[in-house]
Amino acid sequence: MHFAEARLPVHGGDLARIAARYGMDAAELLDFSVNVNPLGAPTAVFDYLADARVIRRALASYPDRDASLLKNAVYERYGVPKEAIVVANGSAALLDAALRALLPGRCLVPVPAFSEYRRAIDACGHQWSAMPLASENDFRLDLAQTTDALHRELPGVLILTNPHNPSGALCKKEALIEIVQAAAALACVVLLDEAFIDYAPEESLVAEAAHMENLVVVRSVTKFYAMPALRVGYALAAPRLARRIESSLPSWPTSSVALDAAALAIGDRAFERESIAQNAELRAKLAHELRELGIRVLPSAANFLLLELPAPWGARASICERLVRSWGIVVRDCGDYEGLAERSFVRVGVKDRTSNGRLVQAFRSFSTMEKSA
Amino acid sequence: MHFAEARLPVHGGDLARIAARYGMDAAELLDFSVNVNPLGAPTAVFDYLADARVIRRALASYPDRDASLLKNAVYERYGVPKEAIVVANGSAALLDAALRALLPGRCLVPVPAFSEYRRAIDACGHQWSAMPLASENDFRLDLAQTTDALHRELPGVLILTNPHNPSGALCKKEALIEIVQAAAALACVVLLDEAFIDYAPEESLVAEAAHMENLVVVRSVTKFYAMPALRVGYALAAPRLARRIESSLPSWPTSSVALDAAALAIGDRAFERESIAQNAELRAKLAHELRELGIRVLPSAANFLLLELPAPWGARASICERLVRSWGIVVRDCGDYEGLAERSFVRVGVKDRTSNGRLVQAFRSFSTMEKSA
Repeated sequence: MHFAEARLPVHGGDLARIAARYGMDAAELLDFSVNVNPLGAPTAVFDYLADARVIRRALASYPDRDASLLKNAVYERYGVPKEAIVVANGSAALLDAALRALLPGRCLVPVPAFSEYRRAIDACGHQWSAMPLASENDFRLDLAQTTDALHRELPGVLILTNPHNPSGALCKKEALIEIVQAAAALACVVLLDEAFIDYAPEESLVAEAAHMENLVVVRSVTKFYAMPALRVGYALAAPRLARRIESSLPSWPTSSVALDAAALAIGDRAFERESIAQNAELRAKLAHELRELGIRVLPSAANFLLLELPAPWGARASICERLVRSWGIVVRDCGDYEGLAERSFVRVGVKDRTSNGRLVQAFRSFSTMEKSA
Repeated sequence: MHFAEARLPVHGGDLARIAARYGMDAAELLDFSVNVNPLGAPTAVFDYLADARVIRRALASYPDRDASLLKNAVYERYGVPKEAIVVANGSAALLDAALRALLPGRCLVPVPAFSEYRRAIDACGHQWSAMPLASENDFRLDLAQTTDALHRELPGVLILTNPHNPSGALCKKEALIEIVQAAAALACVVLLDEAFIDYAPEESLVAEAAHMENLVVVRSVTKFYAMPALRVGYALAAPRLARRIESSLPSWPTSSVALDAAALAIGDRAFERESIAQNAELRAKLAHELRELGIRVLPSAANFLLLELPAPWGARASICERLVRSWGIVVRDCGDYEGLAERSFVRVGVKDRTSNGRLVQAFRSFSTMEKSA
């Protein structure tokens, strides 16, 4: 089988395609390639969607163009005024709109990075400059390296992700603010993707985004609140910048149902606390058990772990393939990340206790093979 | 009250804002400014959305990036291969994506036109050339005028709407094909908005779009199938052009729920037949009754009517205001359409029998006033 075909898909959630390739049933596969909260969506969201009368009423009217309900929920939760909020159909759409509005020319991106950034930059016809993060430093963002790169590359936009994806490395709020200020002096806007910050809310720059002139924070609603089927996300920026981004979006970008569900989800503080606590506990346990097998587990503040597999286990692609064939387990093969092609990195989501146990069991089979070899 | 404030909103469906302005309850208002099918969504869509188990399952997985279910439904209904179909969150988003992909420089648009075109062209930084349609000709598209304008303006894109909005004027398929061919000779792409063609499917160019190299047909699902709350639409174009448009869209543009509902809706042929028949009957009756009051009713093939109100009734803005205050009826004041500012045009949707009756009754009060004056 050709390597490019054998590699597992770039985006999580393409289970049907993998199942078809291996002649398996998608429902049998255990998908560790996605980063969706294993708790499932908040109960209030299910109750809302299960109320046929509500749906019937909602269906018949246009979505609120101002997304007032969702903006109010964001204001209630984070104290950000609605003038600083832009709502769209997912964070990918917001990233596109921001790049179109900002016309950066050149974008600086620490790599390895989420592949959507490259796609969005290419789609807008902008240039891409990669800033390699060091594996020895667990792919942590380095303040000195970043400011040096800003001065050298003079990008119009710097795209950061906190916690980082695929590593899960968390950057402190203070360091990020220093970077945003350094960028401001160079007329560079920082696009900060906080898709997984819900697991480490204390380091979020949501509040700062409303008054720093060169910062756009992009938040996802669908990952933490486990409703990837609904496309909804929001961005926070100083009001003038927020309106510029909004003008790059189509009218009524999002469904009423998605807006309502997102507003309900964000208002659920108990769900938030429970998700953070559960993820922290399960992540620590999974990381510990994987380390015991000789796997390098990078420190993560998110709901996923970047793993470097032991060299004696063999080629990454064949490990991934055996995980699917023998265990029905799909992980994220990181071979297509810039700078990771030659290394044996995979990313796994932190799932429920039983699923995590099965992942450990699967990896243990490689470690046993190694010993018996 | 300042004129700009007094004018009713540019887009239908902003009832809450109007209600607030007049100190009324939005639920009391009869909204003739929207063009949504009064039949409501197909039963299959309600059944799907009312099934809590289905929703629960759908919610937890990412939307199918290929939108296979919807593309299959479009193929089954219109015979267009899926390579020629692009799916997005509404026709406004598709229009934006097409303009971004095509980089037309200059866009030629017959006016009066749907205001979204101007917004989309401005957002992409392209130039706008207006081609005035003649009121004496009931705003019908004129073949000679259009080819002349193509040669004079040399636009990269020509945006047409069939049936036209706000007039409802229908252009024959053969005339449109001639225009597309004339445009091809000038390297101009025709963006054909068929948002209301469901009421006159025999004049649609869906089948042609898959093999004409300079034609993009944009279809809405939410208007005819009465589910404006869900954002979903699709475009049809030759495969290479379709892929270019797709690459200008964010990944996963649409919610699973919207994709599933749209596929169910398009498959419902009985709903389609019933909607067309009912609309034709009610539109004819409404047009007849309004003409009897001295209103000029332009010939329409859609589910709305463009009306020119008799001069003795007074200013358009004050008629619209009185309709809201005294009758709780909201119509689309067309004063902001290019070329219509000085005229007394309003647009009304064709609704159910009772609502239409109430609209006629309201307009009759103006005609009675006129006689008693």
